[in-house]
Amino acid sequence: MHHKKGREESDCFLVEGVKITRELLAECPQQLVALYALPEFFREQALTPTGDRFREISPAELERISALQTPQQVVCVVRRLVQPQLLSPENNWILVLDGIRDPGNMGTILRLADWFGIRQVVASPDSVDGCNPKVVQASMGSVLRVPVIVQELDGYCRQSHGPVVAAVLNGTPVQDYVFPDGGLLLIGNEAQGIRPGLLERVQQAVTIPSFGKAESLNAAVATGILLWELRRRGT
Amino acid sequence: MHHKKGREESDCFLVEGVKITRELLAECPQQLVALYALPEFFREQALTPTGDRFREISPAELERISALQTPQQVVCVVRRLVQPQLLSPENNWILVLDGIRDPGNMGTILRLADWFGIRQVVASPDSVDGCNPKVVQASMGSVLRVPVIVQELDGYCRQSHGPVVAAVLNGTPVQDYVFPDGGLLLIGNEAQGIRPGLLERVQQAVTIPSFGKAESLNAAVATGILLWELRRRGT
Repeated sequence: MHHKKGREESDCFLVEGVKITRELLAECPQQLVALYALPEFFREQALTPTGDRFREISPAELERISALQTPQQVVCVVRRLVQPQLLSPENNWILVLDGIRDPGNMGTILRLADWFGIRQVVASPDSVDGCNPKVVQASMGSVLRVPVIVQELDGYCRQSHGPVVAAVLNGTPVQDYVFPDGGLLLIGNEAQGIRPGLLERVQQAVTIPSFGKAESLNAAVATGILLWELRRRGT
Repeated sequence: MHHKKGREESDCFLVEGVKITRELLAECPQQLVALYALPEFFREQALTPTGDRFREISPAELERISALQTPQQVVCVVRRLVQPQLLSPENNWILVLDGIRDPGNMGTILRLADWFGIRQVVASPDSVDGCNPKVVQASMGSVLRVPVIVQELDGYCRQSHGPVVAAVLNGTPVQDYVFPDGGLLLIGNEAQGIRPGLLERVQQAVTIPSFGKAESLNAAVATGILLWELRRRGT
């Protein structure tokens, strides 16, 4: 389950760490397939190992099953969210990711979507898997609440009923754009930006103005600023 | 020079990659102590190896000196910026970092400071070293333009002539705060936030409102949104 193929075949992924496990037990216990933890985790959380679903393991066993460099007491096997229906962008803002490759960025973007109340994230097939252990870690639990739907983006954007608004380096200054009630907010790859073919589907290009010399902003940071712009004005 | 001690003793740090090396040669060649690169780098950049300052190396040698998992043609030894004078926060915004530990966050924050024209970053002694190879990498070259000054923050904030404005989870919504012409923008550690003793030096606490369920924002993303708020209104 450390690899994409295993996660797809089992329809499950790993979640590690005390805090996220507590959220999992509180918010969506039905997704929890199995929990493996050190004795101190069971003691501190006042849980009882059952031998099957809640299993006590040794530090050596934890080291072996964990995908982290520094394992954290507990590893859970979690069932993926059932792929929900695509939401309409007529009165929802949907975040659309074109080839986000860095797991830290993907996790941070899911955490942002969760913070700003974005209910759906759509990602191109070449984006990093939303259930990759490093994505799960960087999302700080948001992966449990924000579903990522993988779609071929050209067709998806072509069929969209809302405007496609893209973050680029030479568009309308974002503060001058009036966000409608819904649409697709399109974020490009960390190095290449939005792929040229897809740019043809964009109705509005927006830019975060620069006040200094850096050539670009980190993709997750740009997403954060645009979501804030969208929300602070009440959409 | 992969370690902090070596960087401090030599007063130099490593910079790797074609793009950042080109920036280095164009913008601050006086900081370049030595450049080690594969033959193709010299060919593509129309540079001539000199044997001393510009040295041609083999892929095996590159692998040995690089701090990256995937070395990128060229490694430079760069002299640290001379510690500049502390700027006055009376008419400058200075970014102050209290224990930022993750090199990716630190690099992203330096890139942000550069994008938003922040001329000085001050960091507590327990923050990650601004010349750590992973910081240099994540900063995408901004480390060459934005100096990080290490200061014990309690005394620094106490002596400040501008207001200390801190990012916290339960302060004034940032859109309701009127930023003055200058001050210190204080960002806390990724997990613990701003340390309690330092909170006593804060004159204004600001918060990025949440619209969803995530418990917090990534430190670099929060910094980005606050710097954007500060700049979009003309300060």
